[in-house]
Amino acid sequence: MKVKIVSVGTEILLGNIVNTNAAYLAKQCANLGLSCYEQITVGDNEERLQETIQQGLETADIIILTGGLGPTKDDITKEVAAKVMKYPLKLDEESKENIINYFNLIGKPITENNWKQAMLPEPSHILKNENGTAPGVIMEKNGKYVVLLPGPPEELSVMFEKQVIPFFKSISEEIIYSHMVKICGHGESKVDEEITDLLENQTNPTIAPYAKSGEVHLRVTSKAKNEEEAETLMQPMLLKLKERFGDSIYTMEEHITLEESIVTLIKKNKLSISTVESCTGGLLAARLINVSGVSSVYQLGHITYSEEAKIKAVGVKKETIDTFGVVSEEVAKEMAIGEAKFSNTKIAVSVTGLAGPNGGTKEKPVGLVYIACYICGNVYVKRFIFPGNRIKIRNNAVSSALVFLREKLLQYSK
Amino acid sequence: MKVKIVSVGTEILLGNIVNTNAAYLAKQCANLGLSCYEQITVGDNEERLQETIQQGLETADIIILTGGLGPTKDDITKEVAAKVMKYPLKLDEESKENIINYFNLIGKPITENNWKQAMLPEPSHILKNENGTAPGVIMEKNGKYVVLLPGPPEELSVMFEKQVIPFFKSISEEIIYSHMVKICGHGESKVDEEITDLLENQTNPTIAPYAKSGEVHLRVTSKAKNEEEAETLMQPMLLKLKERFGDSIYTMEEHITLEESIVTLIKKNKLSISTVESCTGGLLAARLINVSGVSSVYQLGHITYSEEAKIKAVGVKKETIDTFGVVSEEVAKEMAIGEAKFSNTKIAVSVTGLAGPNGGTKEKPVGLVYIACYICGNVYVKRFIFPGNRIKIRNNAVSSALVFLREKLLQYSK
Repeated sequence: MKVKIVSVGTEILLGNIVNTNAAYLAKQCANLGLSCYEQITVGDNEERLQETIQQGLETADIIILTGGLGPTKDDITKEVAAKVMKYPLKLDEESKENIINYFNLIGKPITENNWKQAMLPEPSHILKNENGTAPGVIMEKNGKYVVLLPGPPEELSVMFEKQVIPFFKSISEEIIYSHMVKICGHGESKVDEEITDLLENQTNPTIAPYAKSGEVHLRVTSKAKNEEEAETLMQPMLLKLKERFGDSIYTMEEHITLEESIVTLIKKNKLSISTVESCTGGLLAARLINVSGVSSVYQLGHITYSEEAKIKAVGVKKETIDTFGVVSEEVAKEMAIGEAKFSNTKIAVSVTGLAGPNGGTKEKPVGLVYIACYICGNVYVKRFIFPGNRIKIRNNAVSSALVFLREKLLQYSK
Repeated sequence: MKVKIVSVGTEILLGNIVNTNAAYLAKQCANLGLSCYEQITVGDNEERLQETIQQGLETADIIILTGGLGPTKDDITKEVAAKVMKYPLKLDEESKENIINYFNLIGKPITENNWKQAMLPEPSHILKNENGTAPGVIMEKNGKYVVLLPGPPEELSVMFEKQVIPFFKSISEEIIYSHMVKICGHGESKVDEEITDLLENQTNPTIAPYAKSGEVHLRVTSKAKNEEEAETLMQPMLLKLKERFGDSIYTMEEHITLEESIVTLIKKNKLSISTVESCTGGLLAARLINVSGVSSVYQLGHITYSEEAKIKAVGVKKETIDTFGVVSEEVAKEMAIGEAKFSNTKIAVSVTGLAGPNGGTKEKPVGLVYIACYICGNVYVKRFIFPGNRIKIRNNAVSSALVFLREKLLQYSK
């Protein structure tokens, strides 16, 4: 079934809030096997909203509208949707009671406009709101569905997961199942070239690539009667991807991040890690410390932004800086070795580079970054040149440091 | 002029990424005085995209499309848009050269599909991409504009601000002029209450509030024939805001960030700063090091994630940790004092807290954070409890540390 997601609200249209509901609903629909073919945002404007719903009914099977169910005059979603469906609004006694209970609970008086929220289309399937006063609604006519959900994300998500999903599962015949194959260390165009044949001949399962800084994610999705059948259907495709990308695949699980997979590798090898950063200024440490439970392997790190800091905190030699420059292979190495020694860790990663916008020369341009990785007595160093502005250079340096660290960790553990 | 924003990409349609570009563009258009009446998201699907552009040309004056300018086969935005506008694609030598330079710089081979990005509609106004390989495009026909921009937010924003804004300003009769009054240390509802009267009676200039972590920004915009007239029009409003928010306003300039205003204050007072972080794990240092030219005041910082690290790196006493716990006022103070001593700085900021999700107790719940600020012999400490998950707690801790530091810096310099 085809879905159209309609977000209603002038605050979204003016860019005052980011529309996280659309992404949430789209993901939920994809998991349900409903194909979302369009997302649209309109203001609280009767004419535009009416037109949008009418157009949606022509091309989609399900229209999900969020927002505009509140008590004020500019909340018109329900009124307009009921008008398009030609269903009258009637007072729903249960919803009225819920509104009374809600206000009793929070100890605030009910204002006159709150009763508007208990006026609901008939016939319709009413969705109770656990976190607010606006009930949701599912209307049906000639096999087409119009779903009205409240705008606040915490009201929407509880209502969707507890009531809308069971409703659509009950009217659907097949399930959608997917794995996220996460690849690091290859650019988008490289990955794309490697799987051109798979992309061209895909039917069930299908593959969809998504690029991230330093990573490419491939969503492999199959449709089947049940989860077991879907998993069987996609196994040959997962095997092909494993053959083509090998160790560059760091996970096949949706929720696992690159830093998490690295922390797991460090724990598995019973190692410990520290960091020492110049241009990235703490961003690398912050990525690792994103991982809850990192404390068993990460304890200490330095930000050594100046030459003196590198000498004082991690024992880089002044001669090394004078001879090779502070952005150099040699300094990166001494930083990593010095950090491992000071922090008493088996691994230490260092970053030294020029994030700009000033300070570049022809030999050492802005974007030049050296990353060193010390592991149990060996030290590896890699030179990068990152394009872009200060923010992009720093973010790319962090992603590349993680990919480099993972590569060396895998070599170590073999 | 009416604008329609079209986001192209199956990854948005499937909810794999949140569409921050639409909010960014909507806000930018509002600032330019362009009315955005619809936002729409479509997949990388030729037929749907063609239909969307055609419909847009009927109702809007400007269609802004983002995404789908990449090198792969499923990137079709430019091809479809050129087809609708009936402009042929031709090889643009300058863009070809930029692609060669880009790949030379990053030291990677150019794959065949990269050349696709240098094929551009003729006639068109070409927008150079500073942070990537896909150029942007503005096409015009019969007074209607189709703007194509790359999907990655850092490529999009630089291109929009440096090239698209000047373009639309050049074709507009009236100018839109604005100041961004940036307020820190007050919540959104507090700021909103303080300016209710101004919001209700606004005509020209207008005020629009935007909430950020730890900050509220008020965009004050006026329309006039020229910049001078616009500036005169908005002066009384800026004065009112200064009276109401005083020192909490850290800048009235669009491009100045909180960290930048703090670095300027530190330089002005001829001071220096270091940081020592536990739960924020480098994020505070990274915020300061966002500022280009920070090296004259920031040299060294520590990430002391474990108890041992706090003792070893910045000399926190073991008794202090044993007596008061590692997340305590006393430990925060010793961290800041120890860091200032080690780094030989006039200022040191420390953060110690519980970012969760585990480790909370009734007395010390997840979200508890102590921030200490040492300035020239005095040390101040503040206790916070932040709601939300690990990421939210850490980001709020960093914002609050910056606001606290600024407050103490202002007191010092008075």
